[in-house]
Order: sequence, then C-alpha cells, then structure tokens
Amino acid sequence: MATTIRIAQAQINTTVGDLAGNRDKILAWVKKAEAAGADLVIFPELAITGYPPEDLLLRPSFVADNLRMFHEIARQIGRTTAIVGFADREDGQVYNAAGLLHNGRVEAIYHKIQLPNYGVFDEKRYFLAGQNVLVFERNDVLLGLSICEDIWVPGAVTETQAFPGDAEIILNISASPYHRGKGHERLDLLKTRARENYAFIVYTNLIGGQDELVFDGMSFVISPEGKVLAQGRQFEEDLILTDLDLEAVRDLRRNDPLFLHKKFKTRATFPIELVRLPEFEETAPKPSLPQSQVKPLKELEEVYQALVLGTRDYVRKNGFQKVVIGLSGGIDSSLVATIATDALGPENVVGVGMPSMYSSRSSIEDAEALARNLGIPFHIIPIKEIFDVYLKALADIFAGKPQDITEENLQARIRGNLLMALSNKFGWLVLTTGNKSETSVGYSTLYGDTAGGFAVIKDVPKLLVYDLSKYRNRMAGRLLIPENVLVKPPSAELRPNQKDEDSLPPYEILDPILEMFVEQEMGPDEIVEHGFPEDVVRRVIQMVDRNEYKRRQSPPGIKITPRAFGKDRRMPITNRYRF
Amino acid sequence: MATTIRIAQAQINTTVGDLAGNRDKILAWVKKAEAAGADLVIFPELAITGYPPEDLLLRPSFVADNLRMFHEIARQIGRTTAIVGFADREDGQVYNAAGLLHNGRVEAIYHKIQLPNYGVFDEKRYFLAGQNVLVFERNDVLLGLSICEDIWVPGAVTETQAFPGDAEIILNISASPYHRGKGHERLDLLKTRARENYAFIVYTNLIGGQDELVFDGMSFVISPEGKVLAQGRQFEEDLILTDLDLEAVRDLRRNDPLFLHKKFKTRATFPIELVRLPEFEETAPKPSLPQSQVKPLKELEEVYQALVLGTRDYVRKNGFQKVVIGLSGGIDSSLVATIATDALGPENVVGVGMPSMYSSRSSIEDAEALARNLGIPFHIIPIKEIFDVYLKALADIFAGKPQDITEENLQARIRGNLLMALSNKFGWLVLTTGNKSETSVGYSTLYGDTAGGFAVIKDVPKLLVYDLSKYRNRMAGRLLIPENVLVKPPSAELRPNQKDEDSLPPYEILDPILEMFVEQEMGPDEIVEHGFPEDVVRRVIQMVDRNEYKRRQSPPGIKITPRAFGKDRRMPITNRYRF
Repeated sequence: MATTIRIAQAQINTTVGDLAGNRDKILAWVKKAEAAGADLVIFPELAITGYPPEDLLLRPSFVADNLRMFHEIARQIGRTTAIVGFADREDGQVYNAAGLLHNGRVEAIYHKIQLPNYGVFDEKRYFLAGQNVLVFERNDVLLGLSICEDIWVPGAVTETQAFPGDAEIILNISASPYHRGKGHERLDLLKTRARENYAFIVYTNLIGGQDELVFDGMSFVISPEGKVLAQGRQFEEDLILTDLDLEAVRDLRRNDPLFLHKKFKTRATFPIELVRLPEFEETAPKPSLPQSQVKPLKELEEVYQALVLGTRDYVRKNGFQKVVIGLSGGIDSSLVATIATDALGPENVVGVGMPSMYSSRSSIEDAEALARNLGIPFHIIPIKEIFDVYLKALADIFAGKPQDITEENLQARIRGNLLMALSNKFGWLVLTTGNKSETSVGYSTLYGDTAGGFAVIKDVPKLLVYDLSKYRNRMAGRLLIPENVLVKPPSAELRPNQKDEDSLPPYEILDPILEMFVEQEMGPDEIVEHGFPEDVVRRVIQMVDRNEYKRRQSPPGIKITPRAFGKDRRMPITNRYRF
Repeated sequence: MATTIRIAQAQINTTVGDLAGNRDKILAWVKKAEAAGADLVIFPELAITGYPPEDLLLRPSFVADNLRMFHEIARQIGRTTAIVGFADREDGQVYNAAGLLHNGRVEAIYHKIQLPNYGVFDEKRYFLAGQNVLVFERNDVLLGLSICEDIWVPGAVTETQAFPGDAEIILNISASPYHRGKGHERLDLLKTRARENYAFIVYTNLIGGQDELVFDGMSFVISPEGKVLAQGRQFEEDLILTDLDLEAVRDLRRNDPLFLHKKFKTRATFPIELVRLPEFEETAPKPSLPQSQVKPLKELEEVYQALVLGTRDYVRKNGFQKVVIGLSGGIDSSLVATIATDALGPENVVGVGMPSMYSSRSSIEDAEALARNLGIPFHIIPIKEIFDVYLKALADIFAGKPQDITEENLQARIRGNLLMALSNKFGWLVLTTGNKSETSVGYSTLYGDTAGGFAVIKDVPKLLVYDLSKYRNRMAGRLLIPENVLVKPPSAELRPNQKDEDSLPPYEILDPILEMFVEQEMGPDEIVEHGFPEDVVRRVIQMVDRNEYKRRQSPPGIKITPRAFGKDRRMPITNRYRF
C-alpha cells in the first residue's frame, strides 16, 4: 500500500478561446511535472477553454474543438496522471468537467455538481449539474476530485467523498477570481474542509486576467489537521510540488474516535463513482523536491499585483503592444501610468498631457516629473484652441445660456478624442484613469475621461488610490509618483479653482459610504447608523443610482473588491426605485 | 355549480422600481375590472416590481417595500379576485410569486417553479424555485395558476394542474419580451397547451419598454379546442374581458375518451396545493361585455410599433422630455428621427446636421427635407473648422503619417461631442442611429456615432431599416422619408466618395450571413453551405468577434430579433477563439 504520493499543481495562465495555446501549455507543464517525478499533475478549472468562456459555450463548434484538444492531451499523458478541466458534452448537454487522464487514456470524467450563478458567475446559463461524485484509486491511494464551488458548499460533495467514499486526498480544481481578502476566505474554508473531512486538500487555482476578472493563483495543499503544507505564488504561474504522506491521514482516522462516528453517520449526498487506475510498477527513485517557501503578499502589495497582472493580460491577450494614458498631474492618472509601466515596461507606455486654460502650471510639471521618473515619453497637446472653436460653433445655439457643466464635459471629451486619435493612428490602447469613487457617483465625463479600452483602477476607491501610490513609492525607495501629486487637493481642473470637494463629500466620508452601499449592500438607514449624516448618505446613494447609464458604457476594468461594477452588479438603467 | 366566469386581463405597462406607481396602477385597473363585473382580474408577472428588476432583488429593502405594496393592494381587493405578481420572501429566500387576493385577504401565494436562465433571463440568480403547483376553486370553478416559463416546459406544471389537479382554466401570468415572430411562437404554444390539457388558457403578458427589452402584450384567451377567444392589443395597455363557459370544458372532458385516459395516466410532477376561496352570493347581473376585435399587426407594423414603444418608454421612464438626433441625410438617422417623432411628438425631437467637407450638398438637403416632413426643428453645425484645429493640434505627433481611419473617426467623434454638448446644455437625450449590421461588424466610431443614451435601431439589420422606412412612408401615404434617402447608396461620408460597400460586403450578402451567425448561431461551414463565399463568411465572422469591445461600450437599444447584442449575447472581449 503506497504511503506517499507526489502531487504537482500546475497553476497556469490560460487564455479564453485559445484552445490550441492552452493545450500546448498544458502539455508543456505535464512534461515539467513528469520531470519532477510527480505521480499526479493537476490543472485549473476549464483549463482548455480558459475561464470564463461565457457564450462561447453556446457554440457547438467551440465545445467540439475543446473536446478535440482534450483527447489530444489525453493521448500524450504517461504515468503522471493528469487532471484537466474542460467543457464536456453528453446527450447535447454541456458540463463543467474534469478529466482523469492516465497512460494515454481518459479513465474518468467528473461533472461539476455545484454550479455558481451569483456575483460574476453565470454557470447555470451554460452547464447542467453533474449527478455523481468521483473517487479514484491510484496505487492504493483514494482521491476525491471536485471542481471549485463543489468544495464551498458544506455537507455535500466533499463529505460524500471523504466518508462513504473513503477519499484520503481531495483534489479541487478552481477558477476563483481575486478580490481583496479573498485569499484568507479561501484558506479558512480549505482548512475547515480538511479538518472536517480528515483529508488532505489539494486546491489548484489559475492565474491571469480575463476582462473584468483577475485570478490570483495562491493554490494550496492543506494537511488533515488544517496546516498549510504548500502554497503557490500569487499572480504568477507556478508548479507546486508536494509529497503527501498518507500515513498522516490514516493515523488520524484510526486514532480519532470522532472520525468513525462521522463515517458511520454521513450518508452519500450523491452516488459515488469509484474508478481504479491500472496499477503500475514504481519507476526509478524520484528526484528530491526543491524547497520553496512562498510568502503571502501584504494587502497593498496584493492589490497592486492584481492591477499589474490584470492590465498586462488585458493588453497582451488582446494583441496590443503599447498603451497611451492622459496624464493630468493628478493622483489617478499617475497611479495608472505607474501600474502600466510595471506591467508592460516603460518602452510600451506613452503619456500625454492635454492642458486647458484651467490647468495649473504645476499640473503639467507634475505630469512631466512622473513621466521622467517612470522613463516614459510625454507629449503635450494643449486643448484651448480646439475648445474655443467648439464654443464658436455652438455660439448661436447656446446664445443666452450661462456656462455650466457642458463646457467642462466638452474639455474632457476633447481630451478623449485626442487620445482616441493617437490610439487609431498608432495602435495604442487607451487606458482610462477613473477610480471607483468617481465611477460610483458618476463624477466623470462619458466619452471624455471614460473613453478608452481598459479602466485599470475603476474598482479602486480614491483613498486606496492614495495608499497604493504611497506603497509604490515606498517600494521604489523614492518619490516615483511626485510628492506634489500626493498632497494637492484632488481637482478635475475643468473650471477655475475647481476642487472635487465642491461637488462631492470628502473622500474620507464618501468612500466608506460607497463601500457600505455598493459592496456590503446596506440601505441608507443602516449606513446612517454607522455615524454618517443622513442627507449626505441619501445624496450619495442617489448619485450612484442615477449614473448606471454611464457605467454601462464604460470600459471594463479589474475587479478587486467583493462587489465591482460590471457583471458583478446588474442594475437596471431604467429604475425608479429610491432607497 | 357555476357555469360561467368573467375574466379580466389587465395588460398594463409597469415601471421597474416604481413600486408605489405600480401599486396605484394595479389598484386603478382593479377598479376598472370591478366596474366591468369581472370575477377575476389578472396582472402580469412581477407587476409590483416591474420586470426585470435585476439586482434590485438582491436588496432586502427593495423586497420589503414590494411586500408592503403587495399587502396594501390585498387589503383593497373586494369580490373581484385578483392575481398579482410580486417578489415573495420566505426564510430569507426570494421567489418569483403570484398572490391570489380576495376580499381583503391573501388567500394563497404561488412560487414560480420553472426559472428561465438563458438568453436575456437570469432568474436563477435571484429566485429559488417553488415546490408546489397551485389550483384554486372559486364558486365551483377550478383554476390553475402559473407564471410564464411554467407553461412553456411540457409535461410539468400545466399537466399537473389539469389532470390530477382537475383545473379547468389555466391562468398564466407572464413577462415575455418581444422579438420578431415571438407572438406566433407563443400562440402556437398556448394552443397546444390548451388542447393537450382540455382546458382554457388565460395568458396575461405585460407591455412596455425596459432598457433593452420591449414587452408586446398580446395577451390571449384560448379555448380547450385551441381557438383564440380573445386577444389583447400589441404594444398598448388593454383590459381584456372574456366570459368563459365552463360547460365547454366539462362537455369536452366528459365526451373525449382520451381525456379519461390521460387523466388516469398523468401523475403529479409536483405536489398540488388546493385552495378554496370563500363562497359568496352572486350580486347584481353583470354588465354586458363590450365587443372588441383586435387585429394582429402585420410583421413590419409590429417591429415598427416595438421600436416606437421601446423608445418612448426609455425616454419617459428615465425622465427625459426631448431627444436630439444627428441627421446625416442617410437612411438610419432618417428612420430613427421618424420613430422618435412617432414616439414623442415632433415638439420633442430636435434634428442636427453636422456637415463635413466630405458631406454632399444633397445630404444636408435630404436631412432638411426629412425634418420639414416630420415637423421637427433642424440645426446645422458645420464641423470642418473644428476638424482642422484638431489636425493642427495633432500635426507634430502625426508628422510623416498618412491619412487613415483616424481622420474619419475624428470627424465622427466631433459630431458625438457636439450632440453631447447639446444634451448637457438642454437636457436632451441623444438617440444614436447605428443599425444591427454596423453594430455587428463594428462599422462605427466608438464615442462618435455610437455616443448617446439609447440606440433605437441597434437590433435592426440594414435591409430591415429600408423595409421599415418604406413601410412608414406607405402608412403616411407620402414620402415622409425623402425618396433620395431611400435610393442613394449608403455612405458614412467620412472621406471623398466613400461607400459602405468599399469596406463591407453588400447588405444583401452581409445581412443573411449575420443572421445565420449571430441569431441562429451557425458556424462558418454551415453558412457557406447556404451558398455564401467562404472568404466573405470568414471575414464577416472575424469582424463580429473583433468588435465585441465596441458593443460593450455602446448604449442599450431595443431587442427585436431572437438574439440581440447585450445581455442576450455575452461574449468575452478577450477571446482568441476563431471560428
């Protein structure tokens, strides 16, 4: 009876729709795992299609092509058993599936039972739920296989595998999107599941950016006592190798009377399919395992890395080389340019200053200083003359009307047009610079500062923008983002002496209200109970509700909070409800 | 034993989130039904919240407020039993529900069993499925109550009601969005259900526009033989009154041996809850029924009315009075202006011509003629001077680069800016004019001609744009849309002598390819088999796939085909799959 098994977790970065590319990457990582003497190599959820493939799954040809890749992979698997996520089809129904591949054959296919259909997830739109739990035996070791949500729902798949199914190791393949603090949530859950089930948990997540989502990796191996035995890197590809000592589970199960009690008490929630892999001779002794110690990132570092990876992957996976950013000398565009430079290198980032008659001299100087610090080119295109011609063209029709927000928006839209002209002429992707506080209350100009392909910090509240900027300066050991940018009061500079606080509550008040309303879904009364003035709370909520139409036409950006705008929060535009 | 029952179907236009407004409307229509001597009055699905309320349903306060309205309505119901759709909550779970209200009391609540989660529907995101089928007795008549999808799924809710449940009349309350031909689909289905179940079908749909969706009404009463006994208007509120003769069902059931066979064969798929309404004395004789005959609209008329209602409701329900439209003298903007004028009246539509140096003289004349025909004001703002200043501002950075699409897009964006400036200054909503053919292949300028609040014809293919224009001229009995607009070759007029056909296949080829690819989800091989050249098919499909990013930032518009862009078709932007 085998007492150890060597597990390789292939925490890879897949690309949605790139079936051949994902196949090649999977095969390359199988080779690495084989070279490391792994008995098993485990890939993330839907590794062949990328995650989430959305309505591509409604296309029969897409599912057929993914199945072809799956069988091509299967034929190339040797003694290192592989677990590969793909979209299965049976009787015209599509399943979120995991294949158990061994020695050139598909030995079993598991269909995900628990399909998430909340938040950013739409899995019931695409998949039928599986009916059977899978447990397989490999050289006398019993392993349960499940997919993402399966392990989150208590008292169901995992318990069926561990008790009636006797699984000693639970493999879970996942595509769990990042948000702040999600790593801790996951780890707590996995520790609980390990202890509850007296089993090793081997949790394999993917990394990479996909439209609004970024996947953070941070795969884990947890011991039956709830101890972290191994951890994958965050936001980087990683091959995590672990030798699991089965005696640890077996001893625990023999010696803990509660285990027997639970074993006799727990009924299978789903029928168990038991698959026995063909026995095989152990080959040459395994190479020794490299010692690796991954330190979890601190909170700001983690958010920053999420933004860097999300930006890099959106740009690269969509085939762009360079990006262009309007630099106002303000904190938002400064942070976005810094993230972009970290993501793509200074040679691929272009800064553009577009001063109006309301721009202070120091604004342009700050933008220039930033560009110099980052080592990126900086162009200046003043907009006053363009603005004046617009006003002339509109003079007749605007006759007798006072200046108002129209003229402010017009300046922002001229800037949007200039950036888009650069984008069209040179093939640069425009990164927009609006933060979550602005996006929430609509403090932005549609087709103006919201014009662009990707909104890097759209889910980052203003106060966090400051924290991230200061964090990045600390890392640099110098004022990469100039001091003046950090200390001056935020302003859109669209009219004389304008300050954000003329139109909005101070961010120290606005940001917590927004967090309570948007992320925690509190109502106004509950927020007021937390000590905020009722008139401010109601005004903020009304601004959020009224600006759904702007958000609907804004570019996608990286989700880093528990509730982002986008497919995470689906509010009607036409909506007369008032909180 | 009662042998007739008078049914009133209240085919109303609700507004999402306007809980008090919807309550008041429901109560007003209850009064109308009472005055007409109705025994029963039936409202559409989720009448209290409006449909679809989307993520408002995740807000406990929203559900609580809707429940309060529900009970307020219940207290005001007298002898005319009312069926009212609302969001129920039980043990923290939310249900898509229908209340059976009688004599001031809630006599029963039904929870929708079949929850659609495809196409534009996300009901599994919000609702838990009900467990029990409802049959109720009112003065010895047995009625089954179900909600929308319940009646679409064969062999389930309806059969349980009709056979083990003995229901003689099946009431279905619905929120079924319009697309071309949907009325026929529904009618065929309802006739089948009536015949299969030897029962009257009383199907009540709502009307009105809600963001991307328009609901067409067209409620029906079908006899057990599958005959249409009554039909509601399309795209208009309507109170449909019908006396149902129960003897018709009872005779049929007594005399058809197949009925008995089916009755003994059919098992309840769900447990049946049977509710008996308190007996009551018949009051004064009922007023005689008005004879009404609703003629179904012809196909083009139907699509046209859908666009008119969708536009009117988006504008009005979002609190706008007037709209502004850029008139190029082309067919798209001409049709949009005509629809807007029909929806809002000429006093609420403003046309703006923004000629460039590439605009032909006849374009402006055509636009002027259209405005004159419609009786709407027409302003002219030339863009050449603005364009020149932009080119000057960009001269240094563009030095040595040839003219290309950049300069074309720039003109479109100047027009977008001007329209948005008018919108900001006067509070007019900008209607965009792109059709589905353009939207599909990205033949448009983001933030240029796509800039605006509502995209009236975004789901109307170009050839249908022509058909609708000609239809409207026929209805007018004159060339409301000028002859020249109908006959000149389509052009964006963004460079000298430009024609759409320089960049796109002729619409006679493009439109059917798009219909097969987008609406019917065919792959390239299948489309080629229908006789289209492979290179053209592949190029068109590639254009559709590559332009997802533009569509994602475009305004909502009215779905009139089986598969619109928007929440009906959820494709990833980052997507390397190639058909």
